[in-house]
Amino acid sequence: MLKILEFGKKVRPFIDKFMFELLRGKPSELYDAASHLPKAGGKRLRPVLLLAVTKGVGENWKKAIPAAAAIELLHNFTLVHDDIMDKDEFRRGVPTVHKIWGEDIAILAGDLLFSKVFEAASKLLDYGVEPDKVVQVVNRLSQAATIVAEGQTLDLRFVKEVYVSEREYLDMIERKTATLFKIAAEIGAIIGNASSECIEKIKEYGLNIGIAFQIRDDILGLTADEKKLGKPVYSDLREGKKTILVINALSKLPEHEKQFLLKVLGKTQDINLLKKAAELIIRSGALDYAEELAKQYVKKALISLEQSCIQDKEVYEMLKELALYIVERER
Amino acid sequence: MLKILEFGKKVRPFIDKFMFELLRGKPSELYDAASHLPKAGGKRLRPVLLLAVTKGVGENWKKAIPAAAAIELLHNFTLVHDDIMDKDEFRRGVPTVHKIWGEDIAILAGDLLFSKVFEAASKLLDYGVEPDKVVQVVNRLSQAATIVAEGQTLDLRFVKEVYVSEREYLDMIERKTATLFKIAAEIGAIIGNASSECIEKIKEYGLNIGIAFQIRDDILGLTADEKKLGKPVYSDLREGKKTILVINALSKLPEHEKQFLLKVLGKTQDINLLKKAAELIIRSGALDYAEELAKQYVKKALISLEQSCIQDKEVYEMLKELALYIVERER
Repeated sequence: MLKILEFGKKVRPFIDKFMFELLRGKPSELYDAASHLPKAGGKRLRPVLLLAVTKGVGENWKKAIPAAAAIELLHNFTLVHDDIMDKDEFRRGVPTVHKIWGEDIAILAGDLLFSKVFEAASKLLDYGVEPDKVVQVVNRLSQAATIVAEGQTLDLRFVKEVYVSEREYLDMIERKTATLFKIAAEIGAIIGNASSECIEKIKEYGLNIGIAFQIRDDILGLTADEKKLGKPVYSDLREGKKTILVINALSKLPEHEKQFLLKVLGKTQDINLLKKAAELIIRSGALDYAEELAKQYVKKALISLEQSCIQDKEVYEMLKELALYIVERER
Repeated sequence: MLKILEFGKKVRPFIDKFMFELLRGKPSELYDAASHLPKAGGKRLRPVLLLAVTKGVGENWKKAIPAAAAIELLHNFTLVHDDIMDKDEFRRGVPTVHKIWGEDIAILAGDLLFSKVFEAASKLLDYGVEPDKVVQVVNRLSQAATIVAEGQTLDLRFVKEVYVSEREYLDMIERKTATLFKIAAEIGAIIGNASSECIEKIKEYGLNIGIAFQIRDDILGLTADEKKLGKPVYSDLREGKKTILVINALSKLPEHEKQFLLKVLGKTQDINLLKKAAELIIRSGALDYAEELAKQYVKKALISLEQSCIQDKEVYEMLKELALYIVERER
């Protein structure tokens, strides 16, 4: 068994206990809706990364539990609101929050998760983290939330634009997805009292695995087994998302196939047309391209990791495994 | 001129400068949407209250500027999301955020405002507030956001319920509206290093003027001059809101008029029917009842104020004026 999975298995109950204690309250529809996605599953990658980094720089990972819960709450908050905007109906194998409780309660459930992020962070004090560090963590969490909102805005904007460059795409996913990995790693290092140079390297590691994660997400959205994935395939195509696959395919396909793809993207529910578009994308070589690109970011991440101050040999291995897992995962 | 208005006029540029500096960024549609409501106006009651309390307990109010901005950002965040849920089309004399930018951007604009709440709070450090106090402020802001979401959930739930008791109503508005006044006052006192007994009294003051504020809001929603108010009258009736006026009228009206009211509430856009319902409510004595109730909460607030440690005579007068203004305001 991979060391990172073992570590994840060990820390998960601590993350979840802390998180679910914050998600108890009334009115019940609000708290049920807010805890729906965290209860449905999820890989807890971001909090596990955070705790691994804290351990890796030589601090007891238990000190960082509230921060780990905070980052998972922040992630789940963005999922609940994004699912409303993207009109996604399934995630983690269950119907989305707005699908069950309606949009109003889904907005409020997201807001509740968001407010709990900062309640969790404020509780780091009780875990022996110095007050000025706690304020730093709050600052990073709020900045990350800002950047994620910017990224989601771009993601929505790109649906309406015909041509999006790879550069624009990378900027968008850096904000929308990679930021949370970056600050998870950063916060873990802050709590572990790492030096500022080391923190920089650890942030780079987080950022690069985050970019690789989103590219892999784009790939799985086109190729994955629906049951494993927990959400419908082709939903990116259905929603007209400018994934790296779409962007790359559009740059490669001959004119008439490009026009076909543009006519399907975000404009049909017809499964046969969507399937044809997916085949076209794969045939264009965009899939291979994306896989190669993701690997490049993993490579970058591993270089940053090497240059960081992660002392703990075991954690070093774990973070290496995590980076590799991210581009190999099937869900 | 009232002292509180004078103070408000003096501090407002500081609140706004701090707030709008946080609301600059890209993508432009996100930041334009997020700054739309704060730019459109608003009375800045909560931040002014916060700063007055800081001054009143003997601290330089300038030290609390980031917290004042934070509470105004939090208030505006709730307005943007509430307007989506309530389908309100006007506020502060301008179209609401979702009306201009659509629901997706409105959700994100609210989220951005929310994240800026905590970025603002974290900047209290730069204003010389001790780190442990900053963490306390973060904790209070996040708890308040939680309670406001609970209150808004109840407000939505009550639309679907036929009978809501006055007690349930008071619990709902305490969460939805009064909480922000309460923690504005509390945070002002925390930053001003007030004793915990004094903080308790100041919180009570804030809570009670907050309840009075919402009752007055209910009254204005039925009786105000539309232009002064900046939003359509009767929108509470149109949305089926269980305001104190509706609740009290339902308890007083004879059966057939009660049935008429229930048939109109949340079920028609017909201005003549809405007008008739409003007249019925007023005729029932519910308006007088609500006005009396609001005054009682102001009285409670003034008693708490008297028992608090507000030393500064000028601020004492200001907070007295604020409490009275809240039930006399026409918008």
